[in-house]
Formats: sequence, C-alpha cells, structure tokens
Amino acid sequence: MGDELLRGDHPDTNSPWLAERLAALGRVPDSIEQVPDRAGAAEAAVRRWTEEGGTLFLGGGLGPTEDDATREEIAAGLGAPLVENAEAAEMIRDLERRRGRTFTSYTHRQARMPEGCRPLANPAGTAPAIFYERETGFLLVLPGVPSEFKAIAASVLPIPETGARVQEWRLAGLGEDKLAMLLEGFPGLEKLGFYPDREGIRVRLPVVEFDREELARRLGRHVVSRDGQTLEGVVVKLLRARGETLSLAESCTGGMLGARITRVTGASEVFLGGVAAYSNAVKMSLLGVPREILDAEGAVSEACARALAEGARRRLSADWALSITGIAGPGGGTEEKPVGTMHIALAGQGGTQHIARRAPWDRENNRRYAVQEALTLLFFALTDQ
Amino acid sequence: MGDELLRGDHPDTNSPWLAERLAALGRVPDSIEQVPDRAGAAEAAVRRWTEEGGTLFLGGGLGPTEDDATREEIAAGLGAPLVENAEAAEMIRDLERRRGRTFTSYTHRQARMPEGCRPLANPAGTAPAIFYERETGFLLVLPGVPSEFKAIAASVLPIPETGARVQEWRLAGLGEDKLAMLLEGFPGLEKLGFYPDREGIRVRLPVVEFDREELARRLGRHVVSRDGQTLEGVVVKLLRARGETLSLAESCTGGMLGARITRVTGASEVFLGGVAAYSNAVKMSLLGVPREILDAEGAVSEACARALAEGARRRLSADWALSITGIAGPGGGTEEKPVGTMHIALAGQGGTQHIARRAPWDRENNRRYAVQEALTLLFFALTDQ
Repeated sequence: MGDELLRGDHPDTNSPWLAERLAALGRVPDSIEQVPDRAGAAEAAVRRWTEEGGTLFLGGGLGPTEDDATREEIAAGLGAPLVENAEAAEMIRDLERRRGRTFTSYTHRQARMPEGCRPLANPAGTAPAIFYERETGFLLVLPGVPSEFKAIAASVLPIPETGARVQEWRLAGLGEDKLAMLLEGFPGLEKLGFYPDREGIRVRLPVVEFDREELARRLGRHVVSRDGQTLEGVVVKLLRARGETLSLAESCTGGMLGARITRVTGASEVFLGGVAAYSNAVKMSLLGVPREILDAEGAVSEACARALAEGARRRLSADWALSITGIAGPGGGTEEKPVGTMHIALAGQGGTQHIARRAPWDRENNRRYAVQEALTLLFFALTDQ
Repeated sequence: MGDELLRGDHPDTNSPWLAERLAALGRVPDSIEQVPDRAGAAEAAVRRWTEEGGTLFLGGGLGPTEDDATREEIAAGLGAPLVENAEAAEMIRDLERRRGRTFTSYTHRQARMPEGCRPLANPAGTAPAIFYERETGFLLVLPGVPSEFKAIAASVLPIPETGARVQEWRLAGLGEDKLAMLLEGFPGLEKLGFYPDREGIRVRLPVVEFDREELARRLGRHVVSRDGQTLEGVVVKLLRARGETLSLAESCTGGMLGARITRVTGASEVFLGGVAAYSNAVKMSLLGVPREILDAEGAVSEACARALAEGARRRLSADWALSITGIAGPGGGTEEKPVGTMHIALAGQGGTQHIARRAPWDRENNRRYAVQEALTLLFFALTDQ
C-alpha cells in the first residue's frame, strides 16, 4: 500500500522479497497488488479476507507520520472497533526505555489496533505489526519500510534464505522459437521458467524431481552453464583452463564486448585488451586492415571483419581474437547493407571463422545482440573441439 | 502476468517504469497487480475492463514459447473469437525478410489475436502487441520482456521522456550531499524529483511555475542539459560543434567508456576509437606507455593515466584523449592502492589534466563511476573555457 508505488517513484521491493521466500516454502501467492493509501483498498482486501479465508499480507500505512486511516480501514474491514492494545502500548514503552528517550504521541498512537488482534514486536522500528488469526487463515499487517517489513516477516514465518533449491541454467546461440522446437513435448515443460534477454536465455529449474539429463540432451551445445554462470564467465574460465589469451577489435560496439568480458573478476588472466576501431583510420593504423578492403568492400563486410580479427590477434599477440563490425542504426543503412547488418569474426590458431547476422532492434539492442553472438561464437569454438 | 513474478524470481520492473511515465502525464493507476499465467486472471481483467471502461495495460503471455492460453483468455474476456490477424502476420513476415531467415510456426502463431483488435509493431522482438479501443477507453496487451514492453509502450503513448509537461535536467560532477548543500532553502525544493545513479543525477521539474533560472544559477556548471540529454550526448554535441575529435585508453573499464560514447547516434563524427589496454604489454605496444612508468609507479598511477591519455591522443591522432586506469575490485587492492582507486586523465592541445578518485562500490559500479567521472572531466573542459 502506498501512493508512491502507483506513481512509480519507488518499486515495491517487499512483495518480490516475500514471494521468493514463500516460494522456497512451496507457497505461491494468487496475486500481488500495489494499491493507493486511503482509498478503501485496505478495507476491501480485509473484507475479502474475512469472507474467503486464506492468508493476506498487507504492507504499509502503519508509520508514525501516517494518520490512523489504515488502522481504521482494517478495523472496518474486520468489523471490529479500533482500540488501544495494551500489549502493543507496552512494546512501545519498552522501546522508549531501551532507547532512553520519550516518543511523541504520534508514535504512541501506533498501539491502536482493531479489537481481537495480536501485536507483533518490530525489531527494526517503532510500529508493532498487526496479526489476526482465524480458523480459515491469517492476516498480517506490516509496516511498509522494507527493513521493518522484512524483519517482522522473518520473525514470524519459517522463512529459509534463498538459493540452494532453485537451479538456474544459461543458454546461448538460440532464440525463443528454436528453444520451443527443441523442448516440444518435454515432460514438465510448464514447470520451467524461461527468461530471454540480449545476453541469452536463463532457465529456472524447479525444486522437484525433474529429468535434468533429458533436458541437457535436448538443449545440447546451447547449455552454457548449469549453475547460473554467465556466458562471459564461462568463456573466461574455458580460456584460463586452456592457458590461452583473447584480444578484440570492435567497430560499431565501441568497447561493449570488452566491457562485458571485463565484468568477470580475473578476466585479466586471459584478456589482453582490444581496439575500438571506430574510424577507418584506426582500423588501418592500429590493426593493419588493408585500405583495399575498406575501399572495395567497406568497413561493414566479411573481409573487414576477418582482417580486424586477424589484426587484433597479431598486433596484441593473442591466441584468439574476436571482431565485430556492423551498422547499429538508426541511420547508415543501405539497400545492400541494411541497418542491423553485423559481421563477426573469430581468429585462432586454426584459421578464421566468420558469421553474418541481421539484428532487427534499436541501436543499443543491436549492439548487445552482436556482442552476444560474438561471445557465443567463441564459446562454441572452445567447447566443440 | 507471469508465474515468475509470484514466485519472486523476478520483480515486476515494467509496471514501475510505466507508472513513472504515466505520472509524468498526470495519470496515476488505480492499482497495479501481478497475476499468474493461465489462471483466468487475464480473462477476468479484460472482462472487468469491458464492463467498467478505463484503460487496462496487460504485460506478458505473448512470447513464442508460450502457448495460446493468454490470447484465448483475452479473446474470451472480450467475447471475440481468436483469429489470425492479417496485419500481424505481415509484421512477422516483414521481420523474417529483414532478418533474412525463416521463423518457426511458433513465432507465426503470434499473429493470432482476438477479432477486432489492432496489432502494434514490436521494434524489439517478434510478438506484435494487441490494441483494442472502445469509446470508454483502451486495452493494450504487451509482451512481458522488458525491452519489448517498453519499446511498444513508448511508441504508442504520448510519453514524455523529457516531454512538454515534465522537464528533466541532467547533472554531473556532484553527489547528493553537495546537491543538498547547493539547494538548501531553495523555494519549492520539495516539488523536485531527484534520481541519482551511476550516470549522474536526473532532476524532474514540476509542470507548475517554478524559478528555473534560480535553479540553474545554484547548480552552476553541474547542469549538463535542460532537456534530458545525456552527458555522453552533450559531450558528442560539444565536440561536433568545435570540429574536434576524441580517442580513449581504457584499462580497468575494458571498453565501457567507448561503449557509452558510442550509444550516441552520430558519435562517429567525433569519436575515432580507443584502446582497451588491459594488459601491460598492450599499454606499451599500442599506446607507448614507457616500461619505466609501469615498473616504478605501476599501471594504476597518475603517471600511467597521463601516459595512456597522451599515447591515445598521439597514436589515434585525436584532439582529445581520455584514459582510465584503476582497481575495480573485488581483488587486487593493496594498502597503498585500495580497491576503488581510479586515475583518470584528459590529454588535449593545452596539456594533460589528471584526477584521482576512490570508488566505494562493487566491481561493476566502480567501473561505471569511473566512466562517469571521465566524461565529466571532458564535459568541464569543453564548457569551462
């Protein structure tokens, strides 16, 4: 509850936090809702709870700067009068004693609760939470301040810390349509969560029994990691295990591929550096791309991508070199080379590979896509042999 | 819509993003809700919309790996049959042509929509959005992938990124504490919204009468733009106006500064390129950093930052060159040079400037901070003279 959640000033961080912990207990809420203050939403939710049972968590509206509106709404929803709760009043006085100071009447008003409620101590603030139990379920009203919300929820629920139970895989080199094809008819498909973005696809696996080996078999070489490790992290690890080094030549991405690889702690063991060869002059002077290629084929071409990768490999004395040259957009496209055209090359000891791609998005997403494709090309080269 | 939102795997980032932009238009939603897939929530919401009118945004359930459940629910809520929409089918075929490949039947199924809907082109993915208009309001069903959700919403709504009603200024070169000092006692301070991140501070100004000149006077040289233009955009514009060029030498940021500058459309007019000089060998070979500096002072030092900037200016024949060298963390710190130590230099015709910084965050944020400080150094150099 809070007008700021509806104005987008603040995202609601309490609900995802609670949902994640409930999921670990095997419970998933029917819905999560952000509602305004003082608009009857609390009263309506509490009334629905009295009628339908189940469990209702309400966050917000209990702070000392807030008036009694929320408390009154909850009391109205329960059909109970708002009274001073002796136990809650004692909690506040106890806090006064421990902090060695006197609170204002605003703070003491936080002892007012619907009759029949039980207060829950707040280890992180002054407002006790409101707990109301029926045979059909319980109602818990918590302060909206995240530290208080979480501290009280954690004190009441048998909440495990996250991790351990949910497994995350990373995939590369395939889109959602190919993924759907590979997994057609896979038993338990509906239990998997897929999260595609410009850095591949993350797959969340369920806690329950699940045929992981069959899943791995179907996804084949597209499985980057089975422990959530990123594509760049896995590439750095593979290079380190082989004792090999990497350099880069980036044109339209301007350094984005280097920025992504150097996210990895310890990248310096394998990554020597790169050249953001944005202008043709730099492509020639620092990487030795022949003027003839630029004149005849243009900077965005297979020949240039190959020359860039080979130049970066040679000039930076690396075992491997990746290059990207393309038209990120929105301008600069031609009929022959439309916006989104990307040429990517990988130079290695055994020769140079090249792939061409067409990215259909906006400038920034086209660049991210090219970076992902380049890393995937190297990942396949490091795993397929 | 999405089970993952209720399991807490992912927070819902689309809704706060949309809410913030609606607030700028003076609209605040009555409520925001996260609901599960395939549980009738979409159908119920659409039915409520047909009865009550108003505007309903629905996000999720349109991807190719998802079955038709959401489309069917929406059709049921509208009381319309699910049919292939010719315009949507053409959008998907057009994307196929532009990408030069054939999609699977899963992707083509995304053309199925309730009869009477209008498809909206998706500039960031394959699934067109579903738009349905009545006299009492409209319904917009968007893909859940954030880049797609945002791209389509921004293409449809009169969303002021910086728009007529809400004005956004960008600030650089100051933290929140200095900002508070500069604005102490400023009349109407409470009407301003401040959004600090690693790319400076965004200030949202109210629609109402407001003393903009006094605000500008107090903020002085820290005002980067009064129309929401980014720091990198303003730097590129200033360089272009002067007919000057820029090159880079990046060590710990690995290309991040180049990636940020090349976000700007038209950066190629001023940005020549850069060297990600991650290893000492590359610092020496490509940028001519003397071995004596690396031996005596180390790679993370004022002398090395100066040599990097001067080398990048000379070797890439640029008017200006920026360099960054530092310890991003989490490892690699010493007592003398703790994690977060950053040396930044700017070489220009009039000589070389240097600043030293201590970044207190994690690896990625320390790197972003260094990039922001480097751009700010150049911004001040281009505006103070």
